[in-house]
This record gives sequence, C-alpha cells and structure tokens, in this order.
Amino acid sequence: MTLRIAEIFGPTIQGEGALIGEPTVFVRAGGCDYRCSWCDSLHAVDSANRHDWAKMSAEEVFDQVCTLSGGKPLTVSISGGNPAIQDFAPVITLGQAAGYRFACETQGSIAKPWFGALDTLVLSPKPPSSGEKVDWEAFDNCLIAAQSCEQVVMKIVIFDDIDYDWAKATAARYADLPLYLQPGNAEVDPDLPLDLQAATDRLLWLIEKVTADQWYAPRVLPQLHVLVWGNKRGV
Amino acid sequence: MTLRIAEIFGPTIQGEGALIGEPTVFVRAGGCDYRCSWCDSLHAVDSANRHDWAKMSAEEVFDQVCTLSGGKPLTVSISGGNPAIQDFAPVITLGQAAGYRFACETQGSIAKPWFGALDTLVLSPKPPSSGEKVDWEAFDNCLIAAQSCEQVVMKIVIFDDIDYDWAKATAARYADLPLYLQPGNAEVDPDLPLDLQAATDRLLWLIEKVTADQWYAPRVLPQLHVLVWGNKRGV
Repeated sequence: MTLRIAEIFGPTIQGEGALIGEPTVFVRAGGCDYRCSWCDSLHAVDSANRHDWAKMSAEEVFDQVCTLSGGKPLTVSISGGNPAIQDFAPVITLGQAAGYRFACETQGSIAKPWFGALDTLVLSPKPPSSGEKVDWEAFDNCLIAAQSCEQVVMKIVIFDDIDYDWAKATAARYADLPLYLQPGNAEVDPDLPLDLQAATDRLLWLIEKVTADQWYAPRVLPQLHVLVWGNKRGV
Repeated sequence: MTLRIAEIFGPTIQGEGALIGEPTVFVRAGGCDYRCSWCDSLHAVDSANRHDWAKMSAEEVFDQVCTLSGGKPLTVSISGGNPAIQDFAPVITLGQAAGYRFACETQGSIAKPWFGALDTLVLSPKPPSSGEKVDWEAFDNCLIAAQSCEQVVMKIVIFDDIDYDWAKATAARYADLPLYLQPGNAEVDPDLPLDLQAATDRLLWLIEKVTADQWYAPRVLPQLHVLVWGNKRGV
C-alpha cells in the first residue's frame, strides 16, 4: 500500500495552534475532500497537482522523516490536504517505536482508527467563509475515534464576523475541547511577498474582538511560519 | 500590607511562552532585584520610577482585575519587575475563590511560598547577555516552593551565541522542565516604532539555530505582543 505525499519537510517549528513553536517535521498528504475558498495548500489539495505527489510506502515516509531529523526523535505533524483520506497507521507505528511523536491536523470530515494512536489531534472545522459545510456527525465520529489520543484540540480559522459568530457557536457545542483561534490569511500566493503589517493587523483584529467580547476560553494565535517566511513552501 | 504595583492592564493575550495566546490580565509588580542590560520593563524595575507605582491592597488589586475582565474569570499574569519580592498570596487567594487562574513570571532569584498556589510558574533565568548572574541555589528553592504548582516551565531569552550555549547547558541541568526559547528584543524604546521585519528575523535566526543543532526539546516562540503592538505599554 502506498501513500500519496505532497511534501515532507523540516525540521522547522510548528507555526500554529496547540503545538506552536515546537520543532517539527511535516508530512503533507496529497488529496482533500474539501476545497476551501481560501485554501493555502492547494498544491496538496487540487487533484490537478496529483502527478506531483510522491507514492511512498510507510517505510519510505518514515525514512525521509529520519533523514531530515538526523535520526533524533521529534514531533511529526501529518497534515494535508486531508490526511484522514489515507491510512497513516503504519507510519505512526514505525515512528513511535523509534520515539517520535505524532500530531495530525484534519478538518474532521473523515474518522480514522489511527487517530487514537496520535499524541495530538487537531480538529479544524471550516467556518462559513470556506464555502464548505461541516458534517457534524462525521466530526463527532472523529472525536470517538480519538478517544485514546493524548491531546485533542479544536482550531478555527476566522476571516470575518460571520466566521467569528460561527466559532462561538461551535465552541459552545464542544466546550470540553481546548480551542485555538487563528486569523485567516487571504494572501496565499507563494510568489508574492507577504504584507507583514497586514498579517499582524489581522491578529490584532481578532485579539480585540475576543477581549472586547470577554470571550476568554480560546487562545488566539497567528500563523508564525507566515510571519517568518511569508507564504513560501517547505518551511 | 500594601503591594507596589507598576501597572494593571488587559485583557489582552499573553504574548510569550507556555500560555502564548491566552486571554490575560497583567498585574505588573514594581521593583526588581536584577537590572538586566536589555530590560524591557524599566518602568517597573528602576527605583527612580517608584513614585509612579501605586500602593494597593490585595483587595484593590483584585478589584481592578475584576473591573478590567468584566467579572468574568480568566488568567491573571503576575509579572514585574520581580513579583517574588512581594507577597501576592492574598491576591491569588481572592482571585482563585472567584474562579480566576494565576500565572507568575520571575527570574527565579527569590522563592516564595505562594508559588505553590499558582496555576503556572514561569521561571526565566537570565542569560549572560543580561549582565546578571544566576544564583542556582535560589533557583532550586523556587522549584521546591512550586512543588504543588500545576505547571512549572522555564523560559530563556536568547540574544546571541553565548546565550544560546548557556541555554543548552541550563536545559541539560533542568531536563524535566518544559522549555521555551525566545529571541531577545533589543528595541525596547516605547516611543520608537518597531522594525517588524527585524523582529521576525530574530525569530528566524533562533529557529534555524535550534533546528540546525537538532535541539528539539524547546519550543521557540516570539513575543507576540511586540509583533502586534511594538513596544507600546499597557497591551
């Protein structure tokens, strides 16, 4: 069985959410069941790019992680696209036997048994601005699949007031899940320089919204990698 | 008994370390036993400013926290200066009874019994570039005082290669403490605009140093508040 892999890169730091700042190698799966309007990873989503995705065995994926990390265990983040389309259980088994830790980020549209083996599962339901609609039954099945996962958190990207209100309603529904809010990034062209001031202004907007609203449950974080590298790939 | 308070402000987000992104009201204590060369909070450190520090009872401090947070519990961060010069136990007791959580940041030069009542203690030993010298016996006494504290972490600011090597040696000595590294900020004048690109470049420098070194234990994080607000006070 082979995995479709858009890219494997690192070590760099995790730029978002619960593990922000953590040295990480990223395994980016190719293929997605969503097509968010503002997707920042179309190279791993749009099936027009599928010929650029490598077909790799679990052993080949983990070998590449080992090479990049110099054989020293660290956190591996499985992202995408939606990695839950594929079976990452063999990669996780190989890696954990060698002391590596595994995080996975998915929108929560497909539940997989291997969620339970993860150290961290980030469920990132997509807000209205994405143009996608969340299937909450599928989302709940992801939570059930992740019951033995060490840490399950929710991350919501917010582009506008409608997204914000949606995030509040979603947070109320899943009050037990630690929540991370992240301002949306509409500048996703890797060939254009990032407007750094605009990026920090979006963070400021979200901080002011949350604090004015006295909503103290979520953490509000930027995409650090975007602040440091813009929209460059492979970092 | 009164407390010397340089400022109380928020809610904003915690900009650094383990609680990065967390909505927080800051209580900044006046007075410090250190005088770091690059101190970014001289208004709370230099005793020449002592006439600007309010003398407040614990009740007055907590009342102000309540007013700012609209009476809704959140995380209160006690910083300074070195807050461990003073007795914050009564503030913590009052606040925790109302559902507030307490974090404290100190260099670890003075141990206080109230460390044990905190939800989070951030020990931030100062590297060589500070011009200060760590008393490790005092630092170890802080760890002993914090034994019943929910979360104890270490944060080290890094300005140069010498600080970096010192951080590695310190991390080896306290391998059980979760570690957060933070690039130093030499631009601390609140009246000058921050060079945002220079700030993210310092983060990049530290990320590249840690990953090239295959040192995967620490998280590497910026001062988010500096990226968002520059060196402005009260945010």
